[in-house]
Amino acid sequence: MNAKSIQLLFEQVRQGKLTPDAAVDRLRHLPFEDLGFAKVDHHRALRAGMPEIILSQGKTPSQVAAIFARLAKHGGNVLATRANEKQFAAVKKQVRGVEYRELARAIVLQKDATRFGKGVIAVISAGTSDIPVAEEAVVTAEIMGNEVEHFYDVGVAGIHRLLAHREAITKARVVIVCAGMEGALPSVVGGLVGVPVIAVPTSIGYGASFNGLAALLGMLNSCASNVSVVNIDNGFGAGYVASLINRST
Amino acid sequence: MNAKSIQLLFEQVRQGKLTPDAAVDRLRHLPFEDLGFAKVDHHRALRAGMPEIILSQGKTPSQVAAIFARLAKHGGNVLATRANEKQFAAVKKQVRGVEYRELARAIVLQKDATRFGKGVIAVISAGTSDIPVAEEAVVTAEIMGNEVEHFYDVGVAGIHRLLAHREAITKARVVIVCAGMEGALPSVVGGLVGVPVIAVPTSIGYGASFNGLAALLGMLNSCASNVSVVNIDNGFGAGYVASLINRST
Amino acid sequence: MNAKSIQLLFEQVRQGKLTPDAAVDRLRHLPFEDLGFAKVDHHRALRAGMPEIILSQGKTPSQVAAIFARLAKHGGNVLATRANEKQFAAVKKQVRGVEYRELARAIVLQKDATRFGKGVIAVISAGTSDIPVAEEAVVTAEIMGNEVEHFYDVGVAGIHRLLAHREAITKARVVIVCAGMEGALPSVVGGLVGVPVIAVPTSIGYGASFNGLAALLGMLNSCASNVSVVNIDNGFGAGYVASLINRST
Amino acid sequence: MNAKSIQLLFEQVRQGKLTPDAAVDRLRHLPFEDLGFAKVDHHRALRAGMPEIILSQGKTPSQVAAIFARLAKHGGNVLATRANEKQFAAVKKQVRGVEYRELARAIVLQKDATRFGKGVIAVISAGTSDIPVAEEAVVTAEIMGNEVEHFYDVGVAGIHRLLAHREAITKARVVIVCAGMEGALPSVVGGLVGVPVIAVPTSIGYGASFNGLAALLGMLNSCASNVSVVNIDNGFGAGYVASLINRST
Amino acid sequence: MNAKSIQLLFEQVRQGKLTPDAAVDRLRHLPFEDLGFAKVDHHRALRAGMPEIILSQGKTPSQVAAIFARLAKHGGNVLATRANEKQFAAVKKQVRGVEYRELARAIVLQKDATRFGKGVIAVISAGTSDIPVAEEAVVTAEIMGNEVEHFYDVGVAGIHRLLAHREAITKARVVIVCAGMEGALPSVVGGLVGVPVIAVPTSIGYGASFNGLAALLGMLNSCASNVSVVNIDNGFGAGYVASLINRST
Amino acid sequence: MNAKSIQLLFEQVRQGKLTPDAAVDRLRHLPFEDLGFAKVDHHRALRAGMPEIILSQGKTPSQVAAIFARLAKHGGNVLATRANEKQFAAVKKQVRGVEYRELARAIVLQKDATRFGKGVIAVISAGTSDIPVAEEAVVTAEIMGNEVEHFYDVGVAGIHRLLAHREAITKARVVIVCAGMEGALPSVVGGLVGVPVIAVPTSIGYGASFNGLAALLGMLNSCASNVSVVNIDNGFGAGYVASLINRST
Amino acid sequence: MNAKSIQLLFEQVRQGKLTPDAAVDRLRHLPFEDLGFAKVDHHRALRAGMPEIILSQGKTPSQVAAIFARLAKHGGNVLATRANEKQFAAVKKQVRGVEYRELARAIVLQKDATRFGKGVIAVISAGTSDIPVAEEAVVTAEIMGNEVEHFYDVGVAGIHRLLAHREAITKARVVIVCAGMEGALPSVVGGLVGVPVIAVPTSIGYGASFNGLAALLGMLNSCASNVSVVNIDNGFGAGYVASLINRST
Amino acid sequence: MNAKSIQLLFEQVRQGKLTPDAAVDRLRHLPFEDLGFAKVDHHRALRAGMPEIILSQGKTPSQVAAIFARLAKHGGNVLATRANEKQFAAVKKQVRGVEYRELARAIVLQKDATRFGKGVIAVISAGTSDIPVAEEAVVTAEIMGNEVEHFYDVGVAGIHRLLAHREAITKARVVIVCAGMEGALPSVVGGLVGVPVIAVPTSIGYGASFNGLAALLGMLNSCASNVSVVNIDNGFGAGYVASLINRST
Repeated sequence: MNAKSIQLLFEQVRQGKLTPDAAVDRLRHLPFEDLGFAKVDHHRALRAGMPEIILSQGKTPSQVAAIFARLAKHGGNVLATRANEKQFAAVKKQVRGVEYRELARAIVLQKDATRFGKGVIAVISAGTSDIPVAEEAVVTAEIMGNEVEHFYDVGVAGIHRLLAHREAITKARVVIVCAGMEGALPSVVGGLVGVPVIAVPTSIGYGASFNGLAALLGMLNSCASNVSVVNIDNGFGAGYVASLINRST
Repeated sequence: MNAKSIQLLFEQVRQGKLTPDAAVDRLRHLPFEDLGFAKVDHHRALRAGMPEIILSQGKTPSQVAAIFARLAKHGGNVLATRANEKQFAAVKKQVRGVEYRELARAIVLQKDATRFGKGVIAVISAGTSDIPVAEEAVVTAEIMGNEVEHFYDVGVAGIHRLLAHREAITKARVVIVCAGMEGALPSVVGGLVGVPVIAVPTSIGYGASFNGLAALLGMLNSCASNVSVVNIDNGFGAGYVASLINRST
Repeated sequence: MNAKSIQLLFEQVRQGKLTPDAAVDRLRHLPFEDLGFAKVDHHRALRAGMPEIILSQGKTPSQVAAIFARLAKHGGNVLATRANEKQFAAVKKQVRGVEYRELARAIVLQKDATRFGKGVIAVISAGTSDIPVAEEAVVTAEIMGNEVEHFYDVGVAGIHRLLAHREAITKARVVIVCAGMEGALPSVVGGLVGVPVIAVPTSIGYGASFNGLAALLGMLNSCASNVSVVNIDNGFGAGYVASLINRST
Repeated sequence: MNAKSIQLLFEQVRQGKLTPDAAVDRLRHLPFEDLGFAKVDHHRALRAGMPEIILSQGKTPSQVAAIFARLAKHGGNVLATRANEKQFAAVKKQVRGVEYRELARAIVLQKDATRFGKGVIAVISAGTSDIPVAEEAVVTAEIMGNEVEHFYDVGVAGIHRLLAHREAITKARVVIVCAGMEGALPSVVGGLVGVPVIAVPTSIGYGASFNGLAALLGMLNSCASNVSVVNIDNGFGAGYVASLINRST
Repeated sequence: MNAKSIQLLFEQVRQGKLTPDAAVDRLRHLPFEDLGFAKVDHHRALRAGMPEIILSQGKTPSQVAAIFARLAKHGGNVLATRANEKQFAAVKKQVRGVEYRELARAIVLQKDATRFGKGVIAVISAGTSDIPVAEEAVVTAEIMGNEVEHFYDVGVAGIHRLLAHREAITKARVVIVCAGMEGALPSVVGGLVGVPVIAVPTSIGYGASFNGLAALLGMLNSCASNVSVVNIDNGFGAGYVASLINRST
Repeated sequence: MNAKSIQLLFEQVRQGKLTPDAAVDRLRHLPFEDLGFAKVDHHRALRAGMPEIILSQGKTPSQVAAIFARLAKHGGNVLATRANEKQFAAVKKQVRGVEYRELARAIVLQKDATRFGKGVIAVISAGTSDIPVAEEAVVTAEIMGNEVEHFYDVGVAGIHRLLAHREAITKARVVIVCAGMEGALPSVVGGLVGVPVIAVPTSIGYGASFNGLAALLGMLNSCASNVSVVNIDNGFGAGYVASLINRST
Repeated sequence: MNAKSIQLLFEQVRQGKLTPDAAVDRLRHLPFEDLGFAKVDHHRALRAGMPEIILSQGKTPSQVAAIFARLAKHGGNVLATRANEKQFAAVKKQVRGVEYRELARAIVLQKDATRFGKGVIAVISAGTSDIPVAEEAVVTAEIMGNEVEHFYDVGVAGIHRLLAHREAITKARVVIVCAGMEGALPSVVGGLVGVPVIAVPTSIGYGASFNGLAALLGMLNSCASNVSVVNIDNGFGAGYVASLINRST
Repeated sequence: MNAKSIQLLFEQVRQGKLTPDAAVDRLRHLPFEDLGFAKVDHHRALRAGMPEIILSQGKTPSQVAAIFARLAKHGGNVLATRANEKQFAAVKKQVRGVEYRELARAIVLQKDATRFGKGVIAVISAGTSDIPVAEEAVVTAEIMGNEVEHFYDVGVAGIHRLLAHREAITKARVVIVCAGMEGALPSVVGGLVGVPVIAVPTSIGYGASFNGLAALLGMLNSCASNVSVVNIDNGFGAGYVASLINRST
């Protein structure tokens, strides 16, 4: 289901083929297709013009496949995050054209490759271990129609590594910064650029990192004013918010 | 100091009136005017085209006044957040045209009223007590050149109050949501709009709100994908990030 | 053992067949049948007219089976929560008529199907992953003699999904709301209905959800006055309290 | 505004004196009377048949007085919790018939003394210092039309004090238990009665009580199945929930 | 090595067979027998007249066996706590007369069965799941020469179960109380007896029990003055302290 | 009221002057004298042979005075902890012979100076700032009939200061150790002595001491087996438990 | 008392003027001069050749003055940290030559100005508000005989401010970095220099800074290997450790 | 790559064989060799003269081997921490001369055995279980060119075990102390020596040790002024900082 279905609905009303009451009723029922275990909500896609999203974590391969297949029928892009290879195998059997982005742990179905974003989204990671989270942001931003550039392993303890990319980074229209441990990178990047910075704390670290809490607190207390924060390891959320900012017209 | 000073610098180099070395040296020293207790950093204004900002909390009235006066000389807008009336009185003696926004606890000097934002920024608060934080966001967004609309006391326990404003809210290009207690409002708003939502947890509440921690955790775990979060009570940060998003060209 | 046994006891005293002292002594010893590893307490059933309950978690299949069989002999309903299939297999060998409710992870023996509840108990879950906790509440309420209606996957980020069921929900006499992540749903539901809402935080989420802590704090700080809270993932407790409220005469 | 106003509205529609559109419009606007700093929401009263509630904490005396006066005009009961004497003085000047319940820190206007509750609500406190929280529950339950009995200073370290009141307590239809420190009392009471127990952790204690956190955690982990919990020091919430349970018909 | 070895040392000095310097030197070296991975400290046994203790957790079976064998040579009692069956098997091969106490997860070598305790130590557990911790306390107290009586599954939600044993419990000279979940039992027991109560929080529970934190905080805030607390699941520590109290002469 | 009153009661029954029923009734009512704001519980004194205790914190001077006067009438010792000078002044007006122990912040009425303790209780403090807590333990132990010796300012960073008192300390029958900051002293003392050590964490410290949490956790994790712990700053509890241990016969 | 007193002691033994036993005895008693409320420990000064230190916080002016005066008699440097003006006034009356360092809140008596440090200690602060903590480190390092250079207000959000001082900072032999909020500065500095960095989290910040906890966790998780950390706001400790490193020979 | 490569670069510029621009360009590109998943940063080695370090945790055997081999080519020492046997096997296939230090879980390639440290580094562990962390510190210090002495199993509950090594410990130029549970050892050691103490909290313990949090807090609050702290289980960091201190010239 896409915007066209709704335009059609209103056209039918205009042409007198449908009473307003009936139209309202149809609208109310259309977007809820009960799969038994989850109400697939097409309204969300409708409202935002965004791809359909599935959080695969905690779902069985067959559940992921069933939801994915149903969503794929509406003709837009579909993204399943936190997916493992078994879940991908199950989806692949039912849906043609899907791809598994291993680093990002994402299943992707890209039917629409329209570029919605106006500029480049830069995705930066502090360490090698933060890459899976960064890649989740990359995949999300790409499927939402953005040009993405990434800069990995440029943590603050070797500030020259970050500064070496300064010129490229400052050209971005939005910046995503993924960092675990002390989570200091967003503050430094925030000071280098004049655009919104989405900070993603990662659970990388040990001991007093408390599974990402240290990085999270650090980012929330950033002394750079252009930083906002999403949940620990939430690369998807960062990619999603960045895409909304980049497409804003 | 503004962009012109730097253009002039480079022009002098081009014309051979200044050696590159001397220019570099002048550039390095220019932006740091040592006031004895704080290095006023004009580079930040330069980079972002943003007003000068002072966090008044923890500074004496005379310190605030001294920094404010110095910044005011550069001709742009100046905003002092978390300011009390004594600090305002001290500033008023030294700087003409300043205004005290009581609800927002902000001292404002608006010399440049250019509209930079492309759309409207909506600022929403859950309860009456969250208004000071919301107002700090409003003032920040206004001085950064945005049109702002606010919707106060529309918390989730009376969802019809929020829905009554739904049409107006969905027209905004960025939405700021301030809420204490359980901090549920950003998730609901996030589901209603298709634009970025900046969530601001407030310290309003008691007992297990732990001074805003409950609201902060709630917002970080939002099931709406378009929500990012700033520090507890950080209305300024939300206004700042929203302004960057709204002006993005 | 049931209320009749005690009435009999008193009758025997009235008829002079038993001295008061002997009766007291018998009463004191009756309810404690020592199984070696747990004192089975029939007093609890007696007092509340409720089914016997076993928390299976942390017990071996044979322990669960032994306690279940003993309780089943007293003729009332028996409910074993947090049970796995192995525990069910062990019980099934010893007790006839037991049933395994897989989603709810519960072993059920329903001998008495009297309807004790005066109205309907509504059980609402925010997401698909919260269903096991919600189902535990459903099973508990059902075995305690209530009519239950459930509404799943109606989280706050798509508020229209909840509102679509508003009419049905407002007819309930008690409402149970299960939600993980930000735990915002009970506040919204609490604002829609005029009856008691039992909120159950679930451990669904990641990162800063801290295994349900975020949802728990959110619910404790609910701005809706009709919300009270039970432990994380405690679907049983919610079903139990709701049943007491619904039967209150 | 009360139910009659709405009945009138529908009557006017039935009689053709008002178009449905106009009626909808009037309904939408009626309940929101903008006081400038808070939207007074009469819908809530309408829905629940409950008194109007004001949380006085964090409001100025004149704010409390203004909201109180406005609410009082609708003819129902009004309750301002967490109120101090200055706030009471301000209210008293504007509203006739108000009363200050010092122990409970509550301002009360009781115009309607109808008994809505079907049974007795028992309010129990563990220690002398928990009494203000318990009294807030008492006042709330009373103004909502309930008969209330209280049992104070019956903490678990002297279990005979509680047991001495056992007979009276077991006659209640709902029980509220307020306790600080280790918060053990609700579990013991929960085991004595067969009705819902609302547990209120209080911030009484020192050191590792962490301002009520110890009591809160204790109550959430209660081994008694009939216990649900409200926020620390939230006597009002407990009284409100208990009233809903007691009136349920 | 026991007290006799040291008496012999001093005797030799008295008789002139050893210079004081040489004696001091021998004393200094005697108690440290370096096993390569741990310094076995016989001084401890010497000082307290207590059995040798090994914390088996985190040690390999062969490490446990080696330390156990070495300690066993000194002729006193030896206790290895938190031991699994593999560790027991390894010990059994090297040391005669050892016994595995399965419930308590303890390896015991009791060569000396002298009764050191003056009275009875009562060990109480709230639930069935707390028994392993309680049994660790029982084994510890027994090997340290005490008469122990236990009372299991007498939690506070069925207070009559505890009261049924009141007479027996009040005869004890020290009481150990093990409880998870809300940890309320020590306060109730503390109010029933006039002797020291050692409270042991257990990690039994789920959700907001936070692995025993709730019980720990509850016990630290006990309103009974005769309660002191040891670490979560530390049955050994409780048994040890109780033994010292019971033997105090 | 003391043991004599109860003996008299039973004597009257024996002599036929009172029916058993009447005696039971009188016993049930005697110990509860309702002062309006607190039930004074003489049973506690009766059971334990201990002085009456008042926690003055959070009570008004007149409340403290009223309770103190009532308790004083029963002829035993009375101790009011956490008392300030105003509370003492109020008590002094009503009760003769009371004394204010300033360092310990305690009001003391010692009518019975019987020595109940069999040995010496040693009270040790790590730093100068821990002395008020230590003194509360001292006063409590003294009024409960013990000989007390104290050793102050002997923290672990200057271990020779502690070792200088080793001989005296090892003669004690129970040891109380008060320490803030890292709370390491109980472990060291626990290793030096063979008797029970009661550890009292104090709130002394700053930053990451989190008001005594660091010391509390340190003590709970003590590697010395003879250490048990009471609440932060709970000098009274430590003195109470130590007295019970010391008097145990 | 200084090293000379002890040399004298041994000299007297060598010359036979004192028996070894008497010398040992004198040594044992000398360093402990009991002031009634604190044992002044000259051993510490003796061992480390360091100034005497007083933590003034929580002490009365007269207590600070008494300890200061006593320590001053031994002829070395004396430093009272966390001192207010009243405490300084009290000290000034008793000790000549003392100085109050207002920013650092320190009372200083510098009798010995020997340079012990081999290189320069750099003290860096992130923001203006961190200066008091940084100054405490400066004063401590100076009185311990070091050359100190400071660099204030060079936080990470304007990384060019820090880099402008890079050359000077890399010349230091030890670096102290004070930062609140996200505490990111030590990681960046740690990456720039090849010497030990002592990180001092400050309590500057609000909301999720949790009084310095965010900065503390950030620093403990620093990705720079040369960073170690002291307590929140512990400028003194940082200065002390840095001095030991700088003097190491 | 080592210092010689850079000297060569500058020499070529001096001799006119390279333009400054070309030299700058070469310098910029040289240290970043992109391995695809991590930027190997030779600058760090260059700056500090330190071995190359790899954190093996979370990396696959082939990733560790690839990075190790690349780093090994530059001719200096290489250390891979937190490595398991599989990772070692992978490295061994590619690099000659590597060694696996099992206790320390470290892969070591020592090509340069120059002694950089001026004195001895003492590494102390409280218990047997802390040894792996201590050994990580030992290996790190050794490969960085230091003489190391270790003292294991000398925890505070048997203070004589520590004091027995006092003389040896006080000869060290830096001391590293590893301790879990209550983490008290650094304070005691800090009081015994006059040199910097690096405290390493370990995750050894159970219950309220909260995986090293108790030890961490204890160490941060140490009453000994010469203690600074690194992350939980961070033996590497302690060895690194100690090496920098020991080599400082």
